[in-house]
Amino acid sequence: MEVAVKMAEGFQLIPLAEMRELSGIEVFRRLLDGRFPPAPIAQTLDFSLVEVEEGRVVFAGTPDLRHYNPLGTVHGGYIATLLDSAMACAVHTTLAAGLGYTSVEIKVNFVRPLTEKSGLVRAEGKVISVGRRVATAEGYLIDGDGKLAAHGTTTCLIFPI
Amino acid sequence: MEVAVKMAEGFQLIPLAEMRELSGIEVFRRLLDGRFPPAPIAQTLDFSLVEVEEGRVVFAGTPDLRHYNPLGTVHGGYIATLLDSAMACAVHTTLAAGLGYTSVEIKVNFVRPLTEKSGLVRAEGKVISVGRRVATAEGYLIDGDGKLAAHGTTTCLIFPI
Amino acid sequence: MEVAVKMAEGFQLIPLAEMRELSGIEVFRRLLDGRFPPAPIAQTLDFSLVEVEEGRVVFAGTPDLRHYNPLGTVHGGYIATLLDSAMACAVHTTLAAGLGYTSVEIKVNFVRPLTEKSGLVRAEGKVISVGRRVATAEGYLIDGDGKLAAHGTTTCLIFPI
Amino acid sequence: MEVAVKMAEGFQLIPLAEMRELSGIEVFRRLLDGRFPPAPIAQTLDFSLVEVEEGRVVFAGTPDLRHYNPLGTVHGGYIATLLDSAMACAVHTTLAAGLGYTSVEIKVNFVRPLTEKSGLVRAEGKVISVGRRVATAEGYLIDGDGKLAAHGTTTCLIFPI
Repeated sequence: MEVAVKMAEGFQLIPLAEMRELSGIEVFRRLLDGRFPPAPIAQTLDFSLVEVEEGRVVFAGTPDLRHYNPLGTVHGGYIATLLDSAMACAVHTTLAAGLGYTSVEIKVNFVRPLTEKSGLVRAEGKVISVGRRVATAEGYLIDGDGKLAAHGTTTCLIFPI
Repeated sequence: MEVAVKMAEGFQLIPLAEMRELSGIEVFRRLLDGRFPPAPIAQTLDFSLVEVEEGRVVFAGTPDLRHYNPLGTVHGGYIATLLDSAMACAVHTTLAAGLGYTSVEIKVNFVRPLTEKSGLVRAEGKVISVGRRVATAEGYLIDGDGKLAAHGTTTCLIFPI
Repeated sequence: MEVAVKMAEGFQLIPLAEMRELSGIEVFRRLLDGRFPPAPIAQTLDFSLVEVEEGRVVFAGTPDLRHYNPLGTVHGGYIATLLDSAMACAVHTTLAAGLGYTSVEIKVNFVRPLTEKSGLVRAEGKVISVGRRVATAEGYLIDGDGKLAAHGTTTCLIFPI
Repeated sequence: MEVAVKMAEGFQLIPLAEMRELSGIEVFRRLLDGRFPPAPIAQTLDFSLVEVEEGRVVFAGTPDLRHYNPLGTVHGGYIATLLDSAMACAVHTTLAAGLGYTSVEIKVNFVRPLTEKSGLVRAEGKVISVGRRVATAEGYLIDGDGKLAAHGTTTCLIFPI
């Protein structure tokens, strides 16, 4: 295995040459067991990949004061980041080797505020449709009490790499 | 002026009792000139408020490796966070004292990837409509070369506080 | 029962005074069994309510040439109309008497084109969350072959009437 | 010029073979001056193309009882249909001959209700971004009093035909 690309500040990226030869689900197996480094944004915002299967991915994190807006609750951007990760990665798990993707758009509904008392929140992404050029997925963010805090959808573009 | 609420880890929140007595635009004047502390998420993700007028707000930041997804570009969540901030705050600037708001949903289109070479990016939020109970706004994120990287819309709920 | 409001061109509206005293699910029971007249738009675009339960509504129709865009497939507006109906009505079924609602926004993904050969298509709307002031729902449009043609989400505002 | 394809019920489609050899803007010039037939859905819902330039299209119509929901206002589907038309066609006007497109998603915010007293409403679509594979556009629907009734965005996929 090629060594993960070392970056300034200690962040690492997945070696792209290696990733190109792997199916999406294999990439996520390696992310899950630590053979691939986590995304820098996941380190910065303190969340992590906790479940993976084909077409379904879960990220989890415990929001705290670092993630607050000035109004005294967790910023919507934290929620959007977890849902975007979960939904886009759910699409990625369905792709064969040689295919790449990019998120074209996300839409997120904020249903219930998160605070530092929300506990461990889980963002689950599930594929809705995968075509040759476009895929869509939905996501649900559940707080530590099992209540729905947000949900969303995404559209991804698929292309050969 | 009441002292800003001190939080663990050095983050501060705007004193809510004081904020309640101010119009939205006055809150943002105080955020802009430093009388009110910046949002914790803005410190965590390293972006800041740079322009404010009634119905229009600009946040700016320089994305770097901390904001990356595993694919080697800036994570969509960073983009969504800046746009959500700009759009929601544009709505906030239009509110009279005694009114609060919450973001109900955001939608973001990712048009051009950001990287650590994108330079200083600006997320501009502008109000589209403000009613008695609902307001909408749009946002555009421009990279350091003046190119559109993303755009979005939001829906906010307005209510008495 | 008050007589449904007669309109020019033969369209009828539900008598609003009567509707105000009914729970949402009761309104839909009356729409389903014909005691209340169908929506004029449903007559104009030729689709109808086929299933109702609390939090879930299905509309169905058979798209044909009347619904085409110039490119030779069914216009996205037909799809959006069925999904908007299904999603908003799913929210309505959850409301107690004395509560009204309005759709604040819809988002629709078009996954597979419809044509005059798509057969009877079904748009199913299901509530995701119902709060005191805001509700959200999702919708899925399935073509006559059982394939997903489109999906969407909506945000509704709830208020006393 | 090839004769427009005649369909049952008097609807006509643009001859696709001819359309393939035309730039998008040329297709719309022909729609505007009547050399190409209007979209069947525009006849069914009674709205029409009124302005075209590269990257910008306006449709207009006068909503009436035919377009009503059961609540006594114009159905959101009518609004979505006009905005979808305006936004998708704005993208189409930018395409060179040999390129096709399809709408991948639309999002519409309903800001002010329409009724049979709204008069002639105008849905203006404007391109936001056009890339090699994806384009986005925004739309604004203005009622007969000049007030904003709805706005939206769309994402289109572009491909060779």
